[in-house]
Amino acid sequence: MTHQDELKQLVGKEAVKFIKDNMVVGLGTGSTVKFMVDALGQRVTDEHLSIIGVPTSERTRQQANRLGIPTKGVDEVDHIDLTIDGADQIDKHFQGIKGGGAAHLWEKIVAINSDKNMWIVDESKMADQLGTFPLPLEVIPYGSTQLFKRLKEKGYQPEFRMAADKHVTTDSNNYIIDLHMHQIDDPKSLALDLDQMTGIVEHGLFLNIVNTVIVGRETGPQVLHAR
Amino acid sequence: MTHQDELKQLVGKEAVKFIKDNMVVGLGTGSTVKFMVDALGQRVTDEHLSIIGVPTSERTRQQANRLGIPTKGVDEVDHIDLTIDGADQIDKHFQGIKGGGAAHLWEKIVAINSDKNMWIVDESKMADQLGTFPLPLEVIPYGSTQLFKRLKEKGYQPEFRMAADKHVTTDSNNYIIDLHMHQIDDPKSLALDLDQMTGIVEHGLFLNIVNTVIVGRETGPQVLHAR
Repeated sequence: MTHQDELKQLVGKEAVKFIKDNMVVGLGTGSTVKFMVDALGQRVTDEHLSIIGVPTSERTRQQANRLGIPTKGVDEVDHIDLTIDGADQIDKHFQGIKGGGAAHLWEKIVAINSDKNMWIVDESKMADQLGTFPLPLEVIPYGSTQLFKRLKEKGYQPEFRMAADKHVTTDSNNYIIDLHMHQIDDPKSLALDLDQMTGIVEHGLFLNIVNTVIVGRETGPQVLHAR
Repeated sequence: MTHQDELKQLVGKEAVKFIKDNMVVGLGTGSTVKFMVDALGQRVTDEHLSIIGVPTSERTRQQANRLGIPTKGVDEVDHIDLTIDGADQIDKHFQGIKGGGAAHLWEKIVAINSDKNMWIVDESKMADQLGTFPLPLEVIPYGSTQLFKRLKEKGYQPEFRMAADKHVTTDSNNYIIDLHMHQIDDPKSLALDLDQMTGIVEHGLFLNIVNTVIVGRETGPQVLHAR
């Protein structure tokens, strides 16, 4: 295991300490989350916890089930107590960007339906200001070329996310456009503008959502209380 | 032909008078639009017009091509000069509701990319206030049960649109939720609220979009200049 993986594993173990028996837990996706799900599986086995996981991806669902964590879909549960997910960038006000894995739509749907949200990240994800990580948009393919022009005119520096000359598509069969804005001065007003643009299904700005952030630092996991 | 169809045919013929040679024309969908496309086909044949149609549905595309009107996709044209479409309800300020045919997402994408928009309707569609026609929302299936609960809590009286016990799905493979609000006092603030709800791809409020409305009245087509 690499040194970075060791730090991620420590973060994952720290995160699952927040999970109590009988909780419904949203399970995100990503490399740090994978270690967290491993640690949760260990706790479920050792302590005979009764946990229901709500995975945000097929990959996480398979991992959870393999470890003996039963899962349900977001539409099959009454509520979600706590969701633990990664993030691509977090600013000093605990606003975040997600969607580097093209899964921010489903992740946001799970997040807004959760009583509490926790993000677990390595320290490279922490920034003073958002924007050096490109902001992902999930967009409807129909009309996306016209939408792209509009975004360009607004100075948002859009780029279609491609893989081997083909559009990357999401679980909802939409395209991804990344905005290379470098510096997002007012995330709230940008979010409002993007919300109102027809053809954008969801942007990757996660504002006023996270309650707790655990950062994997050299000195060990650091728990930050956001709101 | 029924009397109502005769009125729709007169409206269709009136509408195509606004189409000039070399225009790129957005072609909507619906019973009145069908008569308009017939009338356009007649003009293209008689006057050898060079028109490109941008259809909002497969049905309209086939009709246009059959009549000798060449078509292109919304992403294949530089601009659209004029789009002619139907509407489900139009208030006295010329704000509209569309989506009764579950196609308002693609229709709105074509509309906002058009220099001018014209709606052609029978007089039953004209109302003082919007809302007696249920407001359609196109929604992401993932999380739609949770979204439905949220809409209900807000008092928006949601109902999933079903056909034979199955969800009606759109061309983008999403679900439709109709809001039975009966009376929409402030369409602009409702639109802003819906724009910001995660999981709603697009609502059927078409605000500040239409320039000209042609109404099929007993006394003949009435042309109204909206904005």
